[in-house]
Amino acid sequence: MPKIADKYLLVDPWKVVEEGFDPVRNRVSESIFSLGNEYMGVRGYPEEGYGGDSLLGSYFNGLFEESKVAAHYKGIIKSLRFMVNAVDWLYTRITMDGETLDLAGSRFSDFRRELDFKSGIYTRELVWHLRNGKDIKLRFERFVSMTVSNLGCQRIVFEPLNFSGTVQVRTGLDFSVQHEDQGRGYWGTLKRQETGGMSGILAQTVNTKNRLFSAFRLEASDLLDSSPVESDCFIGRNVTLKLEQGKSTTLDKLAVNYAEKDLSLDHESVWQKGIELAGQYAGIGYDKAAEQQLAYWTRVWKSSDIVIEGDPENQQGIRFCIFQMYQTYHGDNPGFNIGAKGLTGEAYRGLAFWDTESYCLPFYIFNNPKAAKSLLEFRYKSLPYALQRAKDLDCEGAFYPIATIDGTESCDLWQHSNLQLHVGTAVAYGIRHYVNITGDTGFLYDKGLEMLIQISRFYATRGQFGQKTGEYGYFGVMGPDEFQLMVNNNCYINLMAKKMFEYTLDVIRQMRDEETAAFEALAERLGLTEQEMADWKHKAEMMKIPQDRESGVYEEHDGFFDMPHLDIRAIPVTEFPLYSHWSYDRLYRYDMIKQPDVLMFLFLYSGQFTLEEKRANYDYYEPRCIHESSLSPSIHSIIAAEIGRPEEAYKFFEFATRLDLDNYNRNTREGLHTTSIAAAWMNIVYGFGGMRSDGEKLVFNPSIPERWGHYSFPITFQGTKLAVEVNKEYATFRAESGEPVDISLYGQTYRVGSEGIKVSLDQVKVG
Amino acid sequence: MPKIADKYLLVDPWKVVEEGFDPVRNRVSESIFSLGNEYMGVRGYPEEGYGGDSLLGSYFNGLFEESKVAAHYKGIIKSLRFMVNAVDWLYTRITMDGETLDLAGSRFSDFRRELDFKSGIYTRELVWHLRNGKDIKLRFERFVSMTVSNLGCQRIVFEPLNFSGTVQVRTGLDFSVQHEDQGRGYWGTLKRQETGGMSGILAQTVNTKNRLFSAFRLEASDLLDSSPVESDCFIGRNVTLKLEQGKSTTLDKLAVNYAEKDLSLDHESVWQKGIELAGQYAGIGYDKAAEQQLAYWTRVWKSSDIVIEGDPENQQGIRFCIFQMYQTYHGDNPGFNIGAKGLTGEAYRGLAFWDTESYCLPFYIFNNPKAAKSLLEFRYKSLPYALQRAKDLDCEGAFYPIATIDGTESCDLWQHSNLQLHVGTAVAYGIRHYVNITGDTGFLYDKGLEMLIQISRFYATRGQFGQKTGEYGYFGVMGPDEFQLMVNNNCYINLMAKKMFEYTLDVIRQMRDEETAAFEALAERLGLTEQEMADWKHKAEMMKIPQDRESGVYEEHDGFFDMPHLDIRAIPVTEFPLYSHWSYDRLYRYDMIKQPDVLMFLFLYSGQFTLEEKRANYDYYEPRCIHESSLSPSIHSIIAAEIGRPEEAYKFFEFATRLDLDNYNRNTREGLHTTSIAAAWMNIVYGFGGMRSDGEKLVFNPSIPERWGHYSFPITFQGTKLAVEVNKEYATFRAESGEPVDISLYGQTYRVGSEGIKVSLDQVKVG
Repeated sequence: MPKIADKYLLVDPWKVVEEGFDPVRNRVSESIFSLGNEYMGVRGYPEEGYGGDSLLGSYFNGLFEESKVAAHYKGIIKSLRFMVNAVDWLYTRITMDGETLDLAGSRFSDFRRELDFKSGIYTRELVWHLRNGKDIKLRFERFVSMTVSNLGCQRIVFEPLNFSGTVQVRTGLDFSVQHEDQGRGYWGTLKRQETGGMSGILAQTVNTKNRLFSAFRLEASDLLDSSPVESDCFIGRNVTLKLEQGKSTTLDKLAVNYAEKDLSLDHESVWQKGIELAGQYAGIGYDKAAEQQLAYWTRVWKSSDIVIEGDPENQQGIRFCIFQMYQTYHGDNPGFNIGAKGLTGEAYRGLAFWDTESYCLPFYIFNNPKAAKSLLEFRYKSLPYALQRAKDLDCEGAFYPIATIDGTESCDLWQHSNLQLHVGTAVAYGIRHYVNITGDTGFLYDKGLEMLIQISRFYATRGQFGQKTGEYGYFGVMGPDEFQLMVNNNCYINLMAKKMFEYTLDVIRQMRDEETAAFEALAERLGLTEQEMADWKHKAEMMKIPQDRESGVYEEHDGFFDMPHLDIRAIPVTEFPLYSHWSYDRLYRYDMIKQPDVLMFLFLYSGQFTLEEKRANYDYYEPRCIHESSLSPSIHSIIAAEIGRPEEAYKFFEFATRLDLDNYNRNTREGLHTTSIAAAWMNIVYGFGGMRSDGEKLVFNPSIPERWGHYSFPITFQGTKLAVEVNKEYATFRAESGEPVDISLYGQTYRVGSEGIKVSLDQVKVG
Repeated sequence: MPKIADKYLLVDPWKVVEEGFDPVRNRVSESIFSLGNEYMGVRGYPEEGYGGDSLLGSYFNGLFEESKVAAHYKGIIKSLRFMVNAVDWLYTRITMDGETLDLAGSRFSDFRRELDFKSGIYTRELVWHLRNGKDIKLRFERFVSMTVSNLGCQRIVFEPLNFSGTVQVRTGLDFSVQHEDQGRGYWGTLKRQETGGMSGILAQTVNTKNRLFSAFRLEASDLLDSSPVESDCFIGRNVTLKLEQGKSTTLDKLAVNYAEKDLSLDHESVWQKGIELAGQYAGIGYDKAAEQQLAYWTRVWKSSDIVIEGDPENQQGIRFCIFQMYQTYHGDNPGFNIGAKGLTGEAYRGLAFWDTESYCLPFYIFNNPKAAKSLLEFRYKSLPYALQRAKDLDCEGAFYPIATIDGTESCDLWQHSNLQLHVGTAVAYGIRHYVNITGDTGFLYDKGLEMLIQISRFYATRGQFGQKTGEYGYFGVMGPDEFQLMVNNNCYINLMAKKMFEYTLDVIRQMRDEETAAFEALAERLGLTEQEMADWKHKAEMMKIPQDRESGVYEEHDGFFDMPHLDIRAIPVTEFPLYSHWSYDRLYRYDMIKQPDVLMFLFLYSGQFTLEEKRANYDYYEPRCIHESSLSPSIHSIIAAEIGRPEEAYKFFEFATRLDLDNYNRNTREGLHTTSIAAAWMNIVYGFGGMRSDGEKLVFNPSIPERWGHYSFPITFQGTKLAVEVNKEYATFRAESGEPVDISLYGQTYRVGSEGIKVSLDQVKVG
């Protein structure tokens, strides 16, 4: 894995700290210091205006624009939707004695910024040395409220060090922001007004007519003057503050943002609703809002913290990951999903991938089941789109998009959007996983089964029988390993489809028994027939799962074993990422894989494969894997831990928690690898914790990395909150709340209640 | 083959005639009545202006514009070049008594148009009934000179039937033409001037700065008034002609067009050169030019006519094909190639494909060797582009473009431009074919071998060894059959590469023996080493040619025999063309093929395969072939004839000569299938004539379709002109000029001289 850390942040168990300003790393830091509350997100850009390299990004979950695609053929999407850069509600300009602050041009010192996981506040400090010899200390604070989704808070503190005087601040709401990827802005102002001590503006996007209301209220400690200022896409105020040497002067700005996608509402109604919300929230005051914020994060850490003793870097790293997971998504707002970069950049266009179900969902299932359910409901809500997409592809049932912001397919590369079939099975797996761990059969019967049936229909019409083998499978597909572009019988897709058929039929049997009337109604509504179910059963039975019987190695797809071999260790490090340095077609003609494919299903259905199989497949595929996906190493780490390769497990883990903090992939500047952040959690819980959650029982086989003293994590299982702690000698499980639950530990079943159990790592129960 | 004729043209051995005007078919007719002289082409659009559905197309060979491509990855082209719609030099508007002629609105009768193969003139007649009761007969004639490439001639004859009076005609040169596919015009005027009795205009394209000069001179029999008229992109004259009842008044316009792609010339030099050419050619007069045109076509028919007795439709059809082949290309202008639609429309963007070498070249080799050589020189001239393109794809040597107007790759679908490797081997095959038939080793040593070496280098670096089989081949490719999108070891590509390596090594040996010093110089210049040649030999020997030993069927690519079967006869006719009706990805997951792939190499290297192999492969692949390429049926016909299936051979031939005349593919409206027209010639000569030209000897196994009385065709072989005639009983071969040559006829060798030989179709020589 040619990944090298770029370490420039201070290590601290509860904070990310950067000392000194490095313009070259500014975009990286902007990503790392991103804030979000699932409803909205802002990158850590300098709000006072910056002439250097910066991505001014302000995003609202699910707020999108659209661009046309030159589609040559049927079934290839004609437009793509992307998360659009939106109002800069932090907009500020600071002028003193005719000089305007700009870190690209101004003289300054003592630059420091930090992101505090405990409070959720991002703070930036510096001393500005004006050309006329005046020195002033500035502190910028901001946070987006986790308790009031619409609320964003900004504080600027001025402390003159060697003078008294005034400062002019222009502050406001700016809709003239550019969407960098498209090289243009997308907002047109509908209304702009000062009202009730607030400045409000309502704008809408050019093509999709998404509307966004924004309003702000100022509070200043030493206000001398304040006057309105407006232009086409901007509303704000020019304020003059009195500064006194050695004293702090504070300017607080509370912004209330409200995104409205319902096109049936008229502009005035949206405006009125915005004004109401602003009236409700903007008056709370910065300190009170910060207090609520602290309380929220205290609850989060109480319920979800992972403690690692003896490894400060990974301790910081995993807390950063958990912090970002909550920032990106915590299930308070229905209809949201998780973009590959969360709300932290334009890359991947703000779109959600199969990462949601495959990498993020487990974190929520075990920490925040309500949020997990809400993610699955996104798929239920977008089922009509998936039904239409299947039709577009001449198939039946539901075909879930490989990349989406609202449920429609938004990947403009047909080879991905038409050939990658693994989202549907990921959704099915997610339903199964969620239901098994939470016991929420209500959701299963109410919405889950309908999705399962429609997904099954797709897989029953997209697949075909091989002419020679007579086996069922999928021709012309791309599996999770995107370095094999268009293949037949991808083993992952085939196996996941087989399991999906079997699970769907299981759930049908179960619901038919348990809730007969409801089932009959559903079956009738969907036109489900016995013949159709028999067809699924037959196809599941006939599914081709190619495996070399002698070695036990599964063949990733038909012909993979004959693919020309490449010693990937011989590729010069300068050629990474290969996507940028190799001709596109060249990527696809080796036995080189981009990310786990066979290993992925060996993990997902872990209980159904032997250790020997896992070893054989790991030994075959690991040396062929280039890890060009950031989702890749954690899965390798988890399996390495399982098959008794602790050093390899740690090697692959090494960059999991710090992928972005140390900018391993050299593209953190574009945004955080939000879904990979979820993989870091999996890496600890499934990897070292040895948890497996794919079977009847919850399984643990804990181990501990050599350099760690102990580690602990919580999980919620069937409503019971379990505290898991592992040290050099023992693994301890204790129910912190809820009924006692059964788990399997090193192959033995234990009932875990409030008194807990303690098992020595050499697998003998000691108390 | 779900192809149905749309017959609306009169059958005539020497003409295409349409009686009555059908607006729905107008675009089809515009294609069919296209004129060209290889330098320029014009569709048969109504030059007087037409408010109905029409594609006003005026094209100049190799004159292109450029548009950007959203390229996501390395090795995918970033811009594409296309033949740009250019000056409407036929521009005319006819007004009488305030009424302007427009077939979309005017009342008219007696509409008739014809294209005369003997004279090369397109004539259109109609009687215009004015609203005021006046009736006037109009005849429009036009041709593009085959003897003076720059010259286009237009004549309009006015014959008032029931009145005397005047007519106002605006005539001129219009650069404001739209390029329909891009929805915009591309020309900016540089200069416009009347000079020496001519009106001239010089314009250039927006992006590529290609320049086109155009000037015209008028001659009118009863001119009353003439005044200049100009606007931004237009220069012309308003003329008033005197009309006398029962008398014809004629307006002739001779336009001289001159395309200049040399960017180093200043505008004034281009203008001056244009004026000179105009002065030289525009004064010739319409009748004199028409006389030269007739003489030219008389020579063509004397040398290249195919006579079919007893089948008027195919007689007309094959003459239409030969006429169009000459119109599109005859080798007078160096640096030209043959677009898939010739100079008859915007479809396929005016680009040349492998069709040039695979389908068109044989016609020229056997009819016009100079033109054949010139086509190969196009590839030599564009070798630097091919070298660069190979580099772009991380390979060595030369990679010829799948679609090009100037030698650069201009296919914006990466799956075609990056994966289709069969142009290079087609060029190599073309060199071999040309040299074998003409004996032109001068070209071979001077340019051919250099291309062969660079092509070999590409194929030696693009291929790989299979990990399991140890055999050499090409992974991640698309063969001629474009319904198998990305496969490994396409049998056609592998076999053609093997043969190409072998031929290159043969030529190296031969040149080294015959022209040692020149060879050494070439080898040194190209850095050719013994090691490299040994590598090619090894790769040729190790080339994978997958074949089922039992049945003799070659497997089109790895895994093809397991591709799900589709009974293509069961596809409803309404679903054709499949590209428009099926989801793009669905096309690629059956054992359905688009066009011959295995059968193609069985034809190209016919002498190396047994009849049994051909039968077995024909029986396997023919029922799987959908013929979505117009190039497809002729190859099937040729092989069917060879393996003794005369009825099938005729069935596939049926639409070869009349593909466009009867609009079998329903897209003739976009332009003629120029390269398929060449396949019609092959279908007769290789199919019924049973010619094979891939071995040491020229081979014939003539047969005759049941409904034909006799047929004859000429071929030029090693400088000798052979007349071949086949009737129900005999095949006759006679050298019309040149030395006696040896041919193989029904397996026996004969020397054919001026006295000729006559062999009975039952294979006994009778005289």
